[in-house]
Amino acid sequence: MLLLIPGPVQTRPEVRSAMAVDIAPWDRDFFPESIAIREKVRDVAGGLPDRHVALPLQGAGHFIVEAAIRTFVPAAAGKLLVVSNGAYADRMERLAREAGRDVAILRIPDTRGVTPGEVAAALAADSAVTHLGIVYSETGSGIVNDVVAVGEVVRAAGRRMIVDGVSAFGALPFDLKAQPEVDAMVFTSNKCIEGLPGMGFAVCPIERVEASAGNAASWSFDLSDVYATGRRAGFGSFRFTPPVQALHAFGVALDIFIAEGGQPARLARYCENCRILYEGCVKLGLVPYLDWKEQGPIIALFHQPKHPGFKLLEFVEALKRRGVLISNFHNTVEPTFRIGCIGHVGPDEIRFAVGAIRGALEDLGVRQKNAA
Amino acid sequence: MLLLIPGPVQTRPEVRSAMAVDIAPWDRDFFPESIAIREKVRDVAGGLPDRHVALPLQGAGHFIVEAAIRTFVPAAAGKLLVVSNGAYADRMERLAREAGRDVAILRIPDTRGVTPGEVAAALAADSAVTHLGIVYSETGSGIVNDVVAVGEVVRAAGRRMIVDGVSAFGALPFDLKAQPEVDAMVFTSNKCIEGLPGMGFAVCPIERVEASAGNAASWSFDLSDVYATGRRAGFGSFRFTPPVQALHAFGVALDIFIAEGGQPARLARYCENCRILYEGCVKLGLVPYLDWKEQGPIIALFHQPKHPGFKLLEFVEALKRRGVLISNFHNTVEPTFRIGCIGHVGPDEIRFAVGAIRGALEDLGVRQKNAA
Repeated sequence: MLLLIPGPVQTRPEVRSAMAVDIAPWDRDFFPESIAIREKVRDVAGGLPDRHVALPLQGAGHFIVEAAIRTFVPAAAGKLLVVSNGAYADRMERLAREAGRDVAILRIPDTRGVTPGEVAAALAADSAVTHLGIVYSETGSGIVNDVVAVGEVVRAAGRRMIVDGVSAFGALPFDLKAQPEVDAMVFTSNKCIEGLPGMGFAVCPIERVEASAGNAASWSFDLSDVYATGRRAGFGSFRFTPPVQALHAFGVALDIFIAEGGQPARLARYCENCRILYEGCVKLGLVPYLDWKEQGPIIALFHQPKHPGFKLLEFVEALKRRGVLISNFHNTVEPTFRIGCIGHVGPDEIRFAVGAIRGALEDLGVRQKNAA
Repeated sequence: MLLLIPGPVQTRPEVRSAMAVDIAPWDRDFFPESIAIREKVRDVAGGLPDRHVALPLQGAGHFIVEAAIRTFVPAAAGKLLVVSNGAYADRMERLAREAGRDVAILRIPDTRGVTPGEVAAALAADSAVTHLGIVYSETGSGIVNDVVAVGEVVRAAGRRMIVDGVSAFGALPFDLKAQPEVDAMVFTSNKCIEGLPGMGFAVCPIERVEASAGNAASWSFDLSDVYATGRRAGFGSFRFTPPVQALHAFGVALDIFIAEGGQPARLARYCENCRILYEGCVKLGLVPYLDWKEQGPIIALFHQPKHPGFKLLEFVEALKRRGVLISNFHNTVEPTFRIGCIGHVGPDEIRFAVGAIRGALEDLGVRQKNAA
């Protein structure tokens, strides 16, 4: 089965086989591996050894997003402005609100990225805002927000930024040392680095982490305590039992990522995947949710055909019979379906998927067999 | 290498090999497996289908403990009394305090379990206490608190109870339907069920979960939302990406657990492991931390020999050279070392470990070769 869900992604055999081993995470023989993973993550994020740190956290992407908000946005004096152009931005908003943070929304259509001008205006209009929260690649719609250009206006306005890079990190360019306004770039083990789920990471400026002690109001989600414990017990160690197999496999995936050419090479492969998928589906008569110029390389959405034979779950099942697994729900208001372009897949797999989509549409009677 | 750390435990080959597979957690073909795991967990906890529910949560044991406290102990009107006789009780206290909960401590030596009379007196003395927090098996010292007897006095006092069963569940007896005072029995995938780390579970009365909506002040850690989402989207589904390989492997481990005779059989094996270890170490001249009558079956602690040649890290390394991995730190005030009796190990492995301990003590010059 070819996994084209937006994550967890299809992995390489050598990555998933690295899961099948017992590991004692507090054994000192494991520390060098654990430390090396953190250092490589920091380097991939453009962090510097003496100024930035990669902080791991057990659990899902939502957990590391909540941890970053709790750690860096103080409940009393902080206010988070969330750029809302998709489902994962809405989730960031909910995570912040339920954590008792003051939240404002900059609402943008989910069919395009936010402009730096829109962010600058929103920051100028609300001097209470201390942080901008932004999703780099919106898995709900496929758009990309330009965190470099947006970061410039955040920096100019003297505010800070938290970047949800869960479905972006490793594929979209990011250079933490060039973006001093960023408090945290967060991501997980099971997206563009092509590992398996279980671990989240935040890459942060050390100075900001140290200055944020006491903010979190949650021991589990206190990234400043993750850092302090690392300083005390060694950065190979963990506060609480990690999903150590997922960490070990992530390390294998990370080495492959680096050997393959890192972020530029991964972006090139995903862009090519996305282009083949987009063009192939357009040729089948499907209508993309996004204009090509707004289409990010991570995930592509298409409107569900307005044909009585099209039902999403039946389409998903028909695709499964043809060896392709896609997401069985959508996050957009309009009915769409979505196909991931990430994971251990290349042009051949995407062409196979386009053929399967054609066949599935025929199976459902939405498209005539042998149509152009 | 034989893992005798207190967890993650040594697993069976068929359990860890179940980790090496890509799985799409939202695929409907995975739902029956996911639902079956939750139902088996509920059954093992003595829950009833229409009255109790097993709620999974991504991450470490500390996370599921914090989630249970946040969900069931309201910040405004609640107060948690923690029975403190070990390091994990102290961690429960810290999790509750940092979550902004009102906390009181019932301090007990870490060399024995709490008595029901002590709990009854503490509850009578503080009418503000709404919940008792108790660690069933204290990994920090090896003692067991009698949650059945303690539960009776909690029930009689009209209070509620949260049980940290992380290192107990599946080995020590528990029957949720007979303990209506329990709001949550929490545990993780990597202890006595002998799976791998990544997932936590809370088994709870449905009525209490529903009544606790709005308490958590954390979306990630809101067990009432885990339940509500299950009701809405199906209990095979997850709110956020689960560590699905750890879940799948846990299911394999759970089936083996049940086939082997469930909790009574597991308790019998661990008790035998612990007895052989305890007696074997006493014969080597080591002094157990606990009297035998207080010794639980999960983990055994021994005082570090008062000999200039004994250094814990060197002892751990000497044991590793002999094929046995134990914990390289201790949670007690007095210097001890600790050896787990849980995981896929039986009497033969424990006898091997006792032999390795003998050899390691000789390697360090703490014990003379060929001594009695």
